[in-house]
Amino acid sequence: MRMVDIIKMKRDGLSLSAAQIDFVVNGVTTGNIPDYQTSALLMAIVLNGMTDQETADLTASMARSGEVLRWDNPFTIIDKHSTGGVGDKTSLVVVPILMACGIHVCKMSGRGLGHTGGTLDKLEAIPGLSVNLTSEQLQAQTLNIGAALAGQSKSLAPADGILYALRDVTSTVESTPLIVASILSKKLAGGAGNLIFDVKVGDGAFMPTLPAARNLADALIRIAKLHGKRVEALITDMDQPLGKMSGNALEIIEVVQILKPTPSAKPDQRLHTLCLSLASNALMLATNITEEEASKRVMAALDSGAAFLAFKSIVTAQGGDTRVLDDTSLFPPAQIVRDVIAPLDGYISRIPARVVGDAVVSLGGGRAVKSDVIDHRVGIETLVHVGDAVRPGDRLFRVHAASDDAASDVSEQLINAISISDIPIVSSPVVIERRT
Amino acid sequence: MRMVDIIKMKRDGLSLSAAQIDFVVNGVTTGNIPDYQTSALLMAIVLNGMTDQETADLTASMARSGEVLRWDNPFTIIDKHSTGGVGDKTSLVVVPILMACGIHVCKMSGRGLGHTGGTLDKLEAIPGLSVNLTSEQLQAQTLNIGAALAGQSKSLAPADGILYALRDVTSTVESTPLIVASILSKKLAGGAGNLIFDVKVGDGAFMPTLPAARNLADALIRIAKLHGKRVEALITDMDQPLGKMSGNALEIIEVVQILKPTPSAKPDQRLHTLCLSLASNALMLATNITEEEASKRVMAALDSGAAFLAFKSIVTAQGGDTRVLDDTSLFPPAQIVRDVIAPLDGYISRIPARVVGDAVVSLGGGRAVKSDVIDHRVGIETLVHVGDAVRPGDRLFRVHAASDDAASDVSEQLINAISISDIPIVSSPVVIERRT
Repeated sequence: MRMVDIIKMKRDGLSLSAAQIDFVVNGVTTGNIPDYQTSALLMAIVLNGMTDQETADLTASMARSGEVLRWDNPFTIIDKHSTGGVGDKTSLVVVPILMACGIHVCKMSGRGLGHTGGTLDKLEAIPGLSVNLTSEQLQAQTLNIGAALAGQSKSLAPADGILYALRDVTSTVESTPLIVASILSKKLAGGAGNLIFDVKVGDGAFMPTLPAARNLADALIRIAKLHGKRVEALITDMDQPLGKMSGNALEIIEVVQILKPTPSAKPDQRLHTLCLSLASNALMLATNITEEEASKRVMAALDSGAAFLAFKSIVTAQGGDTRVLDDTSLFPPAQIVRDVIAPLDGYISRIPARVVGDAVVSLGGGRAVKSDVIDHRVGIETLVHVGDAVRPGDRLFRVHAASDDAASDVSEQLINAISISDIPIVSSPVVIERRT
Repeated sequence: MRMVDIIKMKRDGLSLSAAQIDFVVNGVTTGNIPDYQTSALLMAIVLNGMTDQETADLTASMARSGEVLRWDNPFTIIDKHSTGGVGDKTSLVVVPILMACGIHVCKMSGRGLGHTGGTLDKLEAIPGLSVNLTSEQLQAQTLNIGAALAGQSKSLAPADGILYALRDVTSTVESTPLIVASILSKKLAGGAGNLIFDVKVGDGAFMPTLPAARNLADALIRIAKLHGKRVEALITDMDQPLGKMSGNALEIIEVVQILKPTPSAKPDQRLHTLCLSLASNALMLATNITEEEASKRVMAALDSGAAFLAFKSIVTAQGGDTRVLDDTSLFPPAQIVRDVIAPLDGYISRIPARVVGDAVVSLGGGRAVKSDVIDHRVGIETLVHVGDAVRPGDRLFRVHAASDDAASDVSEQLINAISISDIPIVSSPVVIERRT
């Protein structure tokens, strides 16, 4: 078998066999296939596509490129994946709710890059908490307390890391089969029998349009089913930031507001709705109970405080200091806090999530390049939603910055980016549709 | 400017600017752009194509990547290029004819690889002859005696060599804009104002079908005209070997048979026709004389012996021993000469040129890989043409081999490959059409 012939087949629009795909993935993993051949094949895949069978074979090969976690009963384990957005802290709410409902969650998270945040960075705002668990530690903690919130082990699906790095620099990211194989190979390696996907659509999402998001959701579902998974996807709105808070410590504070609601700190309604929807859909998938029963259990997990306790048990297990969760005022504040004020009256018609995400990065709360160090204190509170009526002097954003200059720059970016219209705008619902 | 953005544009079917193409070619030449990005771009070009303007810009950038020869009057200089075939020794006939007609030819030749032979390898069958001239030597010899027969200087269009090596291992060879830019960049660097192309079509050619050959010929003509060249192309048959001889010393002997015809060694008629056609078309291109006048001058150059003298003057200038040209029996013979005999009667319906070319390589007369050393003595005489009537016992081929085993193997390959039919077959004319 020769790589040059495999490239030629894909260039000519033919389908690759499982053996050919294995040859490629093995060669990529061992380094026996040079990058310049791999990138030519990747471009041919971007332009000529892959059948579902090829995509399923690629997913399986990539999963087999490293360690694969084994569970005695995979269908008692759930994995949740979001395609990423601005202010997306749903995992930190949904995982504790599911634990409180008696479900095991095997979820490995990522770091933020570009305008989207990463769950691991948010967790590290909690003093002492470590996200670096070995596969054995992750599996033991999941079985012992219900879940771990850890980074993906380098030994899981290493082919994906190699391919992704190459795709990033060769403009071969945008390809449904390659995206599906990248996401699902890690899910196969994680071993959960139930998969729930949060496919985000809109300005701040990887998928800008509803047809593109549906296409990705449906492809994820088809390929996951070919691998025997129980799977569903919610397509959810990312045209405006999710929840009030964007920035690491701020998002942990917002997570606590949902897990432990108090009269003084009412949770953001859209974020609340999405967390409940993800949790109850995941519960239904893993247990086959009715929707009504699932909603009831999810509400009970929150209202009883069980979900908050579950979150604290994860933080404790991973060495974190739970005092900041019991009293979020203990989080060290940013040096500068500045409000951005509405300049005129009207209705909020647009709050570009991408601009808010980029602004968090420019404040130091995210990474433009992988080596950037994160300031957990900075971030942006988005105090309005699309459709809200505002009057001059109303607060639109609150900027948490490390310096006056940074606060000024970001305030200007935000006021330039937000749109205020004369006529009321109805915003998209947060859960747009459910795909199965 | 970033390579990743340029790749993305071509991936998305957009056209690249001259500045972007320059950026790519400069980066490829200096090594600043890594191979894995270049190969992704090459695959996007293969699948999404290039406009004529892009192809012309790519050609110019590649030509500018190294030394460019300057001539006081480029339109007095002609360059000839063949897309390569089996038994194609036309350059060795056409160049001396043109010299004898007073035309300067600036022609750099290549080595054989795979089933097609190379002019340089054939020339090196002449004892003492060197094909390694510097650009200054080549230019001086061309101006002094009319032509040189040399290899391409490494300093001419170095980007082409780098790109071709990468295309070869990434299945990105088959692309009209890339093929055109590769061929024409060297012609632009050579600086001749007149270009004549011999685009071969058929089993033994790079272009297997007439539409593909026309497409390449017309693209070469369009892009060459965009660069102000006077240009034309002949599409010529390569379904059967060109001339009797395939193999290095054997082909020099056949060249001498055309340049210095004797009653005992009548030249192959198809080869003779093609050489005359190429020479008179080139002459018309460079001088604007009528076809009748051009034919007359070409015939006179041959009949007077002037063309043969011109060939000897090139050989002499490049250190070769002309005694083997005056008496071709001085070429050292192969150890084994074996005839392949017709097993039945009928009409020759197919003599696959590619099989003959591959057989020459397996005899040691060509290269399967670049580092192979060539045996100049071996080769194959094809003693019949498509359409010839044969009877059992008639000779079909004469194999010149270094060993009995090699002769047996090749004889078997040849007898398996040739087709003999009950009904007469009319072979394609050697010059199929002329494109301008």
